Amino acid sequence: MLIYIAQELSDSFNGSDRKYLKSKTNGYKIFFSKSDKFDKNFMQSNIVFGNVPPKMIEQSSKLEWIQLESTGFSEYMHLEKLNKKIIITNLKGFFAKQVAQTALASILAFYRGIIKSENLKNKKKWIGDPIRNSLSILEKKNVVLIGNGSINKFFKHYISPFNCKTVSFNSNSKSSDIIKHLRKAELVISALPGTDKTNNFFDKSKLNSLNKKCIFVNVGRGNSVDEKYLIKILKNFKIRGAALDVTREEPIKKNSLLWSLDNVVLTQHTGGGSDTETIDKIDFFLDNFKRFKVNKNKLLNKVNLSKGY
Amino acid sequence: MLIYIAQELSDSFNGSDRKYLKSKTNGYKIFFSKSDKFDKNFMQSNIVFGNVPPKMIEQSSKLEWIQLESTGFSEYMHLEKLNKKIIITNLKGFFAKQVAQTALASILAFYRGIIKSENLKNKKKWIGDPIRNSLSILEKKNVVLIGNGSINKFFKHYISPFNCKTVSFNSNSKSSDIIKHLRKAELVISALPGTDKTNNFFDKSKLNSLNKKCIFVNVGRGNSVDEKYLIKILKNFKIRGAALDVTREEPIKKNSLLWSLDNVVLTQHTGGGSDTETIDKIDFFLDNFKRFKVNKNKLLNKVNLSKGY
Repeated sequence: MLIYIAQELSDSFNGSDRKYLKSKTNGYKIFFSKSDKFDKNFMQSNIVFGNVPPKMIEQSSKLEWIQLESTGFSEYMHLEKLNKKIIITNLKGFFAKQVAQTALASILAFYRGIIKSENLKNKKKWIGDPIRNSLSILEKKNVVLIGNGSINKFFKHYISPFNCKTVSFNSNSKSSDIIKHLRKAELVISALPGTDKTNNFFDKSKLNSLNKKCIFVNVGRGNSVDEKYLIKILKNFKIRGAALDVTREEPIKKNSLLWSLDNVVLTQHTGGGSDTETIDKIDFFLDNFKRFKVNKNKLLNKVNLSKGY
Repeated sequence: MLIYIAQELSDSFNGSDRKYLKSKTNGYKIFFSKSDKFDKNFMQSNIVFGNVPPKMIEQSSKLEWIQLESTGFSEYMHLEKLNKKIIITNLKGFFAKQVAQTALASILAFYRGIIKSENLKNKKKWIGDPIRNSLSILEKKNVVLIGNGSINKFFKHYISPFNCKTVSFNSNSKSSDIIKHLRKAELVISALPGTDKTNNFFDKSKLNSLNKKCIFVNVGRGNSVDEKYLIKILKNFKIRGAALDVTREEPIKKNSLLWSLDNVVLTQHTGGGSDTETIDKIDFFLDNFKRFKVNKNKLLNKVNLSKGY
């Protein structure tokens, strides 16, 4: 049995990553690919770890399972027609903890004055006491979670010590119900995926229902928000602030007002990042590898190519 | 029965605060003092809420209980000699939630790149993806808590969803035990009070035992750290960073290196602040007021003037 590691992963693995992977896959040969080109090792492989070009898969003969290193898999969807019976698993939910922590970090940065402190530090300016009554604590807040996926599950778990009142909706929920809760919300966490259905989910009517104390957090996709209108209400202090990991355009254009609004935190779509990303990916693969050996039906995160999830 | 509200509190109460306080103290007269000077209402008072000048208390005749609006009470310690049998209660622990949240906010700001993001935003500069592997998540970290008071109790509660390994010490713990754990620590939270005993608690030997991944958080008192040496190890990246709510000198002098180190968060002794500080103080007083009416022995936070706590 041969495990083929796709070039991008091969490049990001260091010596100890490779050693670790080998030590946990006893009895299997591992080939670390050095290019995205078709090679004879690939033809001998039963398992692929990483996003190899779809064309390679079309030509495979022994391949049984691919573990992707991404959540998205749209480039592989056409493979369904080949009827190859290759199982594809992805990293759905893999970035959820990180993203949920970026959401929490951004909120606490607003509440505990971390942004203000940094800007004062840049000016070497001490204000001290007069800052205190502009601060808030995360306690008994009204929280509206939009999106029922793993990001908001982790977020809800992380804020469990803070006695908040949490209510969850998704893109199928009734607008009038959502708006009723948005009116009272002190925190709104949007973690919607970027589909046609979620486009402009936060339209004028929803954004208008937010109140002056509300912090709006978007850690889903930028397309879900009427960004021009969001900028307008931020500029006029109709809401307390926004923490945007995602935006309509990434990179954000130089002339965007988002850069200059004081009540905005921009984390540049880094919410999923972490210094353990590589080793965590290996661990995910190894867990699925164990399952694969026991019973292919036990594999986690199998994607349904025809349904798109 | 008359309740006397000290001038500083009187000044910070707005109309609805006063109304609320009155509605919850039915049957008691309330006098809101307009100055720090001795007046006849004070002489008639059985209860004082707020930090009146100690000299006034020396002259009091009917006074049974003072609820201070601070944790510190050193200016009242000499009153013990008067043998007046006045009960003094303070706000010990009152600022603990806020301070613990400032500690958590600062750590997450480091881990999720919030400080970096803010500085990029100031320059309207997009970096995006390359930031990701400089980020960390709060998960299974080795945490050393110094100080067994309420700040670290709340902090421990707040990080309970993150599966950290936590060990606690206080200023009586054996240095060699502490150092053993500091060597492995990724997070150190110091919440020591400012006493003779805690002076330079974090001396060279303890600071030298910290590792490159460690974030050092001081939310106790600035005197507990050899600040010159802390600056040295921060400058040489011997530790990952420091979040200092308290410093040896406050305000920090213009020429202090703390202002210019990138790996330092300075929250300017605002850790205890919150926009609900006033109403929370009223609620604390009202809770103690209820206890006072039932049985003086039930009062919370009685201070022992002779022992100093």
